Amino acid sequence: MRGVVLHAPGDVRVEDRPDPKIIEPTDAIIRVSAACVCGSDLWPYRGIEKLDRPAPMGHEYVGVVEEVGSQVTTLKPGQFVVGSFWASDNTCEICRSGYQSACIHRVLMGTLGTQAEYARIPLADGTLVATPGLPDADLVPSLLAASDVLGTGWFGAVAAQAGPGKTVAVVGDGAVGLCAVLAAKQLGAERIITMSRHEPRRQLALEFGATDLVTERGDEGVARIKELTGGLGAHSVVEAVGTQESMTQAIRSTRPGGHMGFVGVSHDVSLPGDELFFSLVHLHGGPAPVRQYLPELIDLIVSREIDPGKVFDLTLPLDRAAEGYQAMDERRAIKALLTP
Amino acid sequence: MRGVVLHAPGDVRVEDRPDPKIIEPTDAIIRVSAACVCGSDLWPYRGIEKLDRPAPMGHEYVGVVEEVGSQVTTLKPGQFVVGSFWASDNTCEICRSGYQSACIHRVLMGTLGTQAEYARIPLADGTLVATPGLPDADLVPSLLAASDVLGTGWFGAVAAQAGPGKTVAVVGDGAVGLCAVLAAKQLGAERIITMSRHEPRRQLALEFGATDLVTERGDEGVARIKELTGGLGAHSVVEAVGTQESMTQAIRSTRPGGHMGFVGVSHDVSLPGDELFFSLVHLHGGPAPVRQYLPELIDLIVSREIDPGKVFDLTLPLDRAAEGYQAMDERRAIKALLTP
Repeated sequence: MRGVVLHAPGDVRVEDRPDPKIIEPTDAIIRVSAACVCGSDLWPYRGIEKLDRPAPMGHEYVGVVEEVGSQVTTLKPGQFVVGSFWASDNTCEICRSGYQSACIHRVLMGTLGTQAEYARIPLADGTLVATPGLPDADLVPSLLAASDVLGTGWFGAVAAQAGPGKTVAVVGDGAVGLCAVLAAKQLGAERIITMSRHEPRRQLALEFGATDLVTERGDEGVARIKELTGGLGAHSVVEAVGTQESMTQAIRSTRPGGHMGFVGVSHDVSLPGDELFFSLVHLHGGPAPVRQYLPELIDLIVSREIDPGKVFDLTLPLDRAAEGYQAMDERRAIKALLTP
Repeated sequence: MRGVVLHAPGDVRVEDRPDPKIIEPTDAIIRVSAACVCGSDLWPYRGIEKLDRPAPMGHEYVGVVEEVGSQVTTLKPGQFVVGSFWASDNTCEICRSGYQSACIHRVLMGTLGTQAEYARIPLADGTLVATPGLPDADLVPSLLAASDVLGTGWFGAVAAQAGPGKTVAVVGDGAVGLCAVLAAKQLGAERIITMSRHEPRRQLALEFGATDLVTERGDEGVARIKELTGGLGAHSVVEAVGTQESMTQAIRSTRPGGHMGFVGVSHDVSLPGDELFFSLVHLHGGPAPVRQYLPELIDLIVSREIDPGKVFDLTLPLDRAAEGYQAMDERRAIKALLTP
């Protein structure tokens, strides 16, 4: 089969790779209907995350079940499924508490590579959620978004306790940040402030439910959020970047007693204990337990209440994956969808 | 009046200081019935916190109202009152949300110095809570504990979401850590693990409700907590020290999705973003909004359901305050009560 392999920073190739096979009796093989490039794929692409050897890429996916292992009981070939970037058993104590991304048996999909024609999904019963029948083609991008960016933005908004009566600020205007805006809106937030200076992203933020746009960053961005919130800071802040600047900006934009949800993968971030202490904010984040939200998100998508697929502003055949990486790296595209 | 002044690290003196007077119409003057030495007083005493000039000391207090300013409406001379170490208006939006320690008009009592015969309490209506009548003398230490260590330990336990069905671990065996054990018990925790190797403190932890004692620290302490919790970590961890080691130990002792409440005043702590990210813990802490809990804590004390005053294992007349500092510094006393 064809699949994406990153050989070195900037060197994305689509190559013949061995067809995946059932290894564990709990595995399923899916034919990938759509995959995509994640903001987090850009860390190794840019050389910020070290690459020891050529790596199969991709951890977001929707597709059709081709084959299931002997112990898979809830899925059958022909079903259209959505899964998260962490394979999880969905039965251990940590999964049952809603943290499938820390399942005691978890497997990171990124190590398997879903930017490909087929993919092996470990712990299929726990990981995959089938849609009700085959979805209309125009819903596929939104279902693919649920696999990571929507689920991650949703977790960020939940961690920030976005809800009725709350002012929510979102730091980061990538696909995850934009999905956090959509999530905050769905969760009933009263006011949603997007921090972005990039016109197409600002437009999409407004479509997703943003009520205010802030272009300032760093200390000026914090001052602007304070200005918009009676000097107090936002009740809820979602951080969707992962840098020292964005984390600092997010903490300082949150009012005392408020909640900050951070979902940008941390890179070289160090938080001073005294700043955290005196801020009195609630901090929660990490790799999103997307699996927890999938049934609800699939419902919202299939009933056409939300359209997170709009974050895909570039669609390419799998063989042109390199162009997708480049466009996202140069911020010409918000997110690239790949069709095998 | 007589009052404690710290002149330099290790140099505690009890001196004649000017009697406090009403300055703002919202002030009250109280005659201090009992004050005490706080673990946080040891930071400047040990020279870890810089001291620019001789400083009046103390921020914990109970006492009898002597005089009130013209705008004080809820208090009158003769009432016995308990207050927190932050004076707060208790009416601003932040106070109403339960974060009186971040009141937009807050005043830090430490700058006024309550280790003295009298004290000026700013924002008296918001800050002070009167007991129902004059309390029995044997209740005074417990009411004094409510002023800070109990309220702080309580906040730590609430921030860690201690409650029914939860396993709670407490890092730190000072008065705050011990009060966090008491709080976890009151909040209904199923299992309470105290980390301490100091015999008298271990005994008091057991009296306050600890079910397990762990002597190991650092990585070994974390391993022991994991061992006691099926490899997962505690649901709730209270950090009551404020050092890099204790914060790290607390984060690593918390299971994914669990809650860590940190109330030790942070000193030279730096938290790596990626550790926080991948831990998936909830983090909340800071200067405790003790005022929020005072009515409930006073009820529990006056009805003799809890006896947090047991943390005072040394009582001295105010004039011998220096001995109290020394005993706490050398860990010969858990907490020293001073009677003016």
